[in-house]
Amino acid sequence: AVWASAAAAQTDPLPSWSDGPTKQAIIGFVTDVTREGSPDFLPVAQRIATFDNDGTLWIEQPIYVQFAFALDRVRELAPQHPEWSRTQPFKDVLEGKMEALAGLGEHAAVEIVATTHAGMTPDQFLQIVKNWLATAEHPRFQRRYVELLYQPMLEVLSYMRANGFATYIVSGGGIEFMRAFAPEQYGIPPEQIVGSSIVTTFERRDGLPDLFRLPKVNFVDDGPGKPVGINQHIGLRPVAAFGNSDGDLEMLQWTTEAGKRRLGVVVRHTDAEREYAYDRDSKVGRLDKALDAAVLDRWAVVDMKHDWKVIFPFEKR
Amino acid sequence: AVWASAAAAQTDPLPSWSDGPTKQAIIGFVTDVTREGSPDFLPVAQRIATFDNDGTLWIEQPIYVQFAFALDRVRELAPQHPEWSRTQPFKDVLEGKMEALAGLGEHAAVEIVATTHAGMTPDQFLQIVKNWLATAEHPRFQRRYVELLYQPMLEVLSYMRANGFATYIVSGGGIEFMRAFAPEQYGIPPEQIVGSSIVTTFERRDGLPDLFRLPKVNFVDDGPGKPVGINQHIGLRPVAAFGNSDGDLEMLQWTTEAGKRRLGVVVRHTDAEREYAYDRDSKVGRLDKALDAAVLDRWAVVDMKHDWKVIFPFEKR
Ligand SMILES: [Ca+2]
Ligand SMILES: [Ca+2]
Repeated sequence: AVWASAAAAQTDPLPSWSDGPTKQAIIGFVTDVTREGSPDFLPVAQRIATFDNDGTLWIEQPIYVQFAFALDRVRELAPQHPEWSRTQPFKDVLEGKMEALAGLGEHAAVEIVATTHAGMTPDQFLQIVKNWLATAEHPRFQRRYVELLYQPMLEVLSYMRANGFATYIVSGGGIEFMRAFAPEQYGIPPEQIVGSSIVTTFERRDGLPDLFRLPKVNFVDDGPGKPVGINQHIGLRPVAAFGNSDGDLEMLQWTTEAGKRRLGVVVRHTDAEREYAYDRDSKVGRLDKALDAAVLDRWAVVDMKHDWKVIFPFEKR
Repeated sequence: AVWASAAAAQTDPLPSWSDGPTKQAIIGFVTDVTREGSPDFLPVAQRIATFDNDGTLWIEQPIYVQFAFALDRVRELAPQHPEWSRTQPFKDVLEGKMEALAGLGEHAAVEIVATTHAGMTPDQFLQIVKNWLATAEHPRFQRRYVELLYQPMLEVLSYMRANGFATYIVSGGGIEFMRAFAPEQYGIPPEQIVGSSIVTTFERRDGLPDLFRLPKVNFVDDGPGKPVGINQHIGLRPVAAFGNSDGDLEMLQWTTEAGKRRLGVVVRHTDAEREYAYDRDSKVGRLDKALDAAVLDRWAVVDMKHDWKVIFPFEKR
């Protein structure tokens, strides 16, 4: 801890974080497990850190970014589907009834995602998402979604990688949706992204072998699915995990309840002015059980309003 | 090619390979795609090479190593399952009727694997496999299975990694079975192993969160499943692929039929004296369609008898 303070005084690896227990929890952990001879030392191969995406690395209000994408896709594809003007849930989307959509059951949400995310190759889907991200704007901030990443978390990603950690995204969002921006925006390559997926199938079309995305759920990387997805993709239990909602509960428990020096961090949205304030009663990113568990399991809880000097990169001078 | 020859003359990166078109195909490809300014140049992030395991990196005759493991597990678990002495396929296993087992339908094989591979955590399974590999011996060579890796392929793995390639295993074998030896034997970390899997589930037992392996197939990483597994785990199409059977056909096609400089390699088992000779009629590792496709798609075909100076590491002086 002495060394951490000394190092921090020289060049602060987390300049957008206010001094305090949360920042110290992160720096203290990294210092302890990377110091040769420390009882908590971890070889590089075991330095696996997992990060939830929506609400942990970028904005998720008023609706998940991927759902905003799906709604725009419905509008774009509508001319080829005249029947949607009289079929739910598409009718509500096309008539802009956002209140109705907010209360959508899971089935309707899955139907919208499946319809708008399937029927093409992974390469084609990647390009569709990239094109959308290049122009679509957040309704409140009037900025592209890739500008609404959390600057303090970008610093955590860089800081941990500089200390030999592999930084994985482990998100309930679509694995191929995230591959359209995570490599460029977070410096996380496609093979270090774990997410939900739809079924893909190998086929020859027009004589060429390719994969095709089908409107059928393959894997849901959320809640208890996160440890399963991590084990499948990485094959090691993480030593640090970052999340913001009850969907991260099992990942955080599995990571930290190992009887060793581990790090669990919960990002709590407490800043209605600069971003949003929500937790136990939110439909998007509900943080209830995991907030109670944070006390029990001694996870660091980020108070965005007080712990983060800036929220988004564009706020930096 | 001039540079490749010059470099090869100085320090041969593939010393166990006889000079000839197969060796030159591998070295020529690596040289072309790693030379700055070459029209075929590939940035490091795109240097993805995939390797089948059974019959490509290690021995697979007279039965797959993992199946030998499963049979030994049946014998070990038999005292806890008295009913097996009158239930097929377990009865045949316990009575050593190998001819009957060779003709096993897929269902019976799956039943044996499911029964012997499930009911524990991934960590426990890893330890069971490690313990078995430490003592079990190949019936013909009287050596442990991890001694029966192909020395020339170990050199290819090292050579490609030294040239910036990520070397992935993509096998029909079990992903968690391979994680017990591939990191140590091949230098391939757990997150670069793609394979078949059974369902795992997150649960708390005795108060601790962990994963548990269930006797249910999750994913079959074989044939058309290989491109699907690669897309899921890596998110990029490989630029080089190595296989030895029809189970690698789609992976090889998807890799090489991209209209660019790509490498496909088929290991053909032609050496009955030093290893085994088998192809179109073999029950294990059948090489039929992929042998025809090799001509059409210009894949390099390894003639083990002539291309490999040694087969196994222990043959080196
Ligand atoms: Ca989240
Ligand atoms: Ca094989």
